[in-house]
Amino acid sequence: MRAVRFIESGRPPEIIDVAKPSPRPGEVLIKVGGAGVCHSDLHILDEGPRSLPAFTLGHENAGWIAELGDGVSGWKEGDAVAVYGPWGCGSCHACQGSAENHCEHHASLPSFGGGLGSDGGMADYMIVPSPRLLVPLGGLDPAAAAPLSDAALTPYHAIKNALPLLTPDATAVVVGVGGLGHMAVQILSALCPAQVIACDVDDSKLAHARELGATYVVNTSDGEAARAQILDIVGGRGVKVAFDFVAIQPTIKLCTSIVGRGGRISVVGMGGGTIALPVIKPYAYSIDLPYWGSRTELIEVIALAQAGRIKAEVETFPLNDALDVYQRLREGRVHGRAVLVP
Amino acid sequence: MRAVRFIESGRPPEIIDVAKPSPRPGEVLIKVGGAGVCHSDLHILDEGPRSLPAFTLGHENAGWIAELGDGVSGWKEGDAVAVYGPWGCGSCHACQGSAENHCEHHASLPSFGGGLGSDGGMADYMIVPSPRLLVPLGGLDPAAAAPLSDAALTPYHAIKNALPLLTPDATAVVVGVGGLGHMAVQILSALCPAQVIACDVDDSKLAHARELGATYVVNTSDGEAARAQILDIVGGRGVKVAFDFVAIQPTIKLCTSIVGRGGRISVVGMGGGTIALPVIKPYAYSIDLPYWGSRTELIEVIALAQAGRIKAEVETFPLNDALDVYQRLREGRVHGRAVLVP
Amino acid sequence: MRAVRFIESGRPPEIIDVAKPSPRPGEVLIKVGGAGVCHSDLHILDEGPRSLPAFTLGHENAGWIAELGDGVSGWKEGDAVAVYGPWGCGSCHACQGSAENHCEHHASLPSFGGGLGSDGGMADYMIVPSPRLLVPLGGLDPAAAAPLSDAALTPYHAIKNALPLLTPDATAVVVGVGGLGHMAVQILSALCPAQVIACDVDDSKLAHARELGATYVVNTSDGEAARAQILDIVGGRGVKVAFDFVAIQPTIKLCTSIVGRGGRISVVGMGGGTIALPVIKPYAYSIDLPYWGSRTELIEVIALAQAGRIKAEVETFPLNDALDVYQRLREGRVHGRAVLVP
Amino acid sequence: MRAVRFIESGRPPEIIDVAKPSPRPGEVLIKVGGAGVCHSDLHILDEGPRSLPAFTLGHENAGWIAELGDGVSGWKEGDAVAVYGPWGCGSCHACQGSAENHCEHHASLPSFGGGLGSDGGMADYMIVPSPRLLVPLGGLDPAAAAPLSDAALTPYHAIKNALPLLTPDATAVVVGVGGLGHMAVQILSALCPAQVIACDVDDSKLAHARELGATYVVNTSDGEAARAQILDIVGGRGVKVAFDFVAIQPTIKLCTSIVGRGGRISVVGMGGGTIALPVIKPYAYSIDLPYWGSRTELIEVIALAQAGRIKAEVETFPLNDALDVYQRLREGRVHGRAVLVP
Repeated sequence: MRAVRFIESGRPPEIIDVAKPSPRPGEVLIKVGGAGVCHSDLHILDEGPRSLPAFTLGHENAGWIAELGDGVSGWKEGDAVAVYGPWGCGSCHACQGSAENHCEHHASLPSFGGGLGSDGGMADYMIVPSPRLLVPLGGLDPAAAAPLSDAALTPYHAIKNALPLLTPDATAVVVGVGGLGHMAVQILSALCPAQVIACDVDDSKLAHARELGATYVVNTSDGEAARAQILDIVGGRGVKVAFDFVAIQPTIKLCTSIVGRGGRISVVGMGGGTIALPVIKPYAYSIDLPYWGSRTELIEVIALAQAGRIKAEVETFPLNDALDVYQRLREGRVHGRAVLVP
Repeated sequence: MRAVRFIESGRPPEIIDVAKPSPRPGEVLIKVGGAGVCHSDLHILDEGPRSLPAFTLGHENAGWIAELGDGVSGWKEGDAVAVYGPWGCGSCHACQGSAENHCEHHASLPSFGGGLGSDGGMADYMIVPSPRLLVPLGGLDPAAAAPLSDAALTPYHAIKNALPLLTPDATAVVVGVGGLGHMAVQILSALCPAQVIACDVDDSKLAHARELGATYVVNTSDGEAARAQILDIVGGRGVKVAFDFVAIQPTIKLCTSIVGRGGRISVVGMGGGTIALPVIKPYAYSIDLPYWGSRTELIEVIALAQAGRIKAEVETFPLNDALDVYQRLREGRVHGRAVLVP
Repeated sequence: MRAVRFIESGRPPEIIDVAKPSPRPGEVLIKVGGAGVCHSDLHILDEGPRSLPAFTLGHENAGWIAELGDGVSGWKEGDAVAVYGPWGCGSCHACQGSAENHCEHHASLPSFGGGLGSDGGMADYMIVPSPRLLVPLGGLDPAAAAPLSDAALTPYHAIKNALPLLTPDATAVVVGVGGLGHMAVQILSALCPAQVIACDVDDSKLAHARELGATYVVNTSDGEAARAQILDIVGGRGVKVAFDFVAIQPTIKLCTSIVGRGGRISVVGMGGGTIALPVIKPYAYSIDLPYWGSRTELIEVIALAQAGRIKAEVETFPLNDALDVYQRLREGRVHGRAVLVP
Repeated sequence: MRAVRFIESGRPPEIIDVAKPSPRPGEVLIKVGGAGVCHSDLHILDEGPRSLPAFTLGHENAGWIAELGDGVSGWKEGDAVAVYGPWGCGSCHACQGSAENHCEHHASLPSFGGGLGSDGGMADYMIVPSPRLLVPLGGLDPAAAAPLSDAALTPYHAIKNALPLLTPDATAVVVGVGGLGHMAVQILSALCPAQVIACDVDDSKLAHARELGATYVVNTSDGEAARAQILDIVGGRGVKVAFDFVAIQPTIKLCTSIVGRGGRISVVGMGGGTIALPVIKPYAYSIDLPYWGSRTELIEVIALAQAGRIKAEVETFPLNDALDVYQRLREGRVHGRAVLVP
């Protein structure tokens, strides 16, 4: 079968032929229906550790069960499933509670998941080491659902962490209405009664945010003006939770200047910015640095999509276009989420 | 090997020879180090469903890993482990989050766990269907640790549910200082700053509760006097949480007469009492009807025991004494928890 | 000024002339804009304690600040405000945290609030003992907002208690789409992503529930059929939270037959039913018996109304019609919430 | 009466005669029993805003009610009380919920509290603007209890924020066993079952921490060695919550190097360090920047002290020694907490 492979840090991926894998006892073979193309792949391709062995890319996957390894019960061939992405040890407190994104043995794991050290979903088939990493999709189309396992799960987890703060009199800010941010606006509307201010430097994305449920939109090209505009909306009490899906220096600065007392900044993006806080009082807020989400949160995300409350915007491409798609991603020419369909 | 078997509802258990089992793919064979003898077994023996097939008793187990089925990794032979008791489907939201005691497919499960439909721990060996049901014991002795998986986990879960209410100015009441209640007093002392009032009809058990950390003890032989004594301690605000480990009519009546506004009654026992509440206002409290605990809670219970914060009082017996031990249990002649050691 | 007065238990209320009150230091005089007519008034009129002195009825009030007592600052005459209903001691843990509905000194309070022992809002003016009991209405009309302080606050509190259970894959049931239930359907839609099943014996109320956001509606005239229909929707896992706004024997029975493991029944109504539960295991659910709500929850309810997310259906009447309105209420001839406007 | 006055930023305080104040309606006059001398006073004296008018210092106060203003009920002269320190607007969502430390109108308040813009407790008497700011002390001595309102309340709030993380298998680190840190060790022991590692550069303080309940102590003079020692204790999973009561660059660096996934750093100190975090993934932790505590948390702190679970180490001085005490504080020559007793 064809597979999009990470070869070495600093080199482009390659599309080559590899053998179709077979599930060992306890494993499940998935026929891939869709593999999302994620910005974080570019970090791995460009700056991944030198020691990393080659593997098939794709950590945002959905498909159908193709074969059950010995000892796997409760599932059957043909079931449509989403594949949970961060693979932990499975037995520590965090993993037992389904938060493999917090695995206590993280530092000693041989791989962080399929497409992240192990073979991932950019191929016709992939091996999932345990059925605990699968969530039934019901009637959802795997190609459309693949991004739910990362582009939706990551903001869902960040939002769920902050949910007790998001009362009807509170305001949430979403900075960056891109692949994750456009999901965040929908998830906030579905999960809580807080008003949502969407921020971006691109007016067309702001118009999109309004359609998705944002109460207000603010163009942040001029940071100081954006700050004033937001404080004008929320008054002296400030913003309760600011989700930063960009995380470059100007967006982090914006967030720290609008957050209110008892509030929170949730830094989800990976823009390379630095949080530089002189420790003076009274601050009275918190900074969350979330990473991906838990297995039960993926169940909840799938339920949201099944109920029609959230929808990832997806552009599909054949597997053979993978190199071109990565290039488009680099150049900011992907609209919504790109998904490879083998 | 020898095994203590449930044969049929209404008949006493039998000790017979059965074949030593072998683990299939994904399963784990445990050499049993201790199997707790629990009151709820008497319910199964006396009133279990007629349709139940024969099985080995013992749902409160610990031991050592004897053999790993194909595909099981991350564990090794000889590891001392506690066996988590309530076995769910493993894939619903509750089970994924480790709360198999709340399995959504409970009604259609073929068995509720080892010793509860499947073969349990009153034998030399038992099969555990997945390593997700194991918690490492570290240096704890399996015979002493077996009761932690039920007699400690059950009150731990009930207490953890109520923890946000148990602030330093709050009062918790423990009704019944028996097998579960004497663990509850220790767990409350370890987990929260609330003052603890222990209640029992037996003064020697009350003396024991004092040693285990109870702030006050109240003999409840005279229900009305006990109620007055408790309200004298806590004042008009009432008790924040009352844990009823007896749950007969007089104890439920006591709990409903002492609980304060915003408080909770947690009915853990199975005494056959009835909660009969005319629905008049203002009530402003809640009633919890907890059942066992989750896998992550068992990890926490084991950690408490490893730190020396809780200790089950255990009396050990050889497997061949099982019928006699059940009889002693029926007659209230077991001190602490009886554990069968094969 | 004219006032609708409770005279004595067992006697109808009377509309008489009383002196316009003046605020003492720390108090606030409110010009009443609307006083809701609540079912619970009938309980007071019919079965209130004999010892209760006469007082002006109306515990669900909104209006404008007419005069500030000495020492009251931060407010000004003409401000539109909702009046928080349950008046506690103000200094216990519960009251300090704004939950005066849980006041620890409840048993020794001379009155439970305006219209509940103290003079309430069915008059041109009422005294509020402290500005802590006021919430600004902003642009909301007091006559339309009066029911928010009880008919919306009471279900809001019940729902907020259960919010952590109401994930996207969960189902909430609302039994009784009347004065409180029709608010509950709206509040659930605004606060959480759970699907909502609305239940009533009246098809026109079910049609209304659909318009307000219910995902499914079930006519409960035939209890057994309703139970089957609900379990057909939710599957074996059962309902996560059942809110019973009726609380007569058949509705309580329905709720206990559909609640799933780890779920909750929230008994909000006062229908005189009895919760009669034989204490057998495994239950694994909880029963909440909530009463009214807290001051901060009222702030949140007002914010929901200001955002247009909830709206009480209100029918207004002049103060002089009070006796007739109580009679209509008794006969079930009030549509939505009746509000007296002085 | 004599009072220790802030005169102007950059000038030492002065002890002068001022008139004894009288309570206006709604206010309470307190006869001061003790006023804690806090490090943050040095910040105000050295770097406070130029515009600040003169006021009496002392924001950590306890005493007896001397006189009630008109309209104040439920209290009586002679009652021993702690004075809650951060005075908010009293009517926003945060203040209504008792968290005046999070007052939404913070930016426009004329003063942050007694001793922080308004006249504080370093005098024979002080005015408290509302009885909502008082907590009864019962039998506690005001001179000994004064530090509870800040030196205990501040770590209590930080710890309570983190409580759900502090399960029996978790580890908490306390960096800095000074005025607040020595309370933190006691509060952690009382509130949760987590093991506690106390860190300081002074071995005598570490010995003290052991007496107060720390499970382990680590001297952090050599940061790299300390980090290795801590990771040796907790293993690869890292520390669950690190409380930094020093907050200089080396302690913040230590905390970020030991925190585990899903963990938290709580920066309580004001050492002038900077949190400089390059935003790279996977982080998966949060940073809390707490400030003081809420009114209900002060109730809980007082309850802990009444139960003998916590005790501030106090050295008392006459009011006239205030200038000398501030000098000793600057030079690190105060053992425990210095309290001025008028």
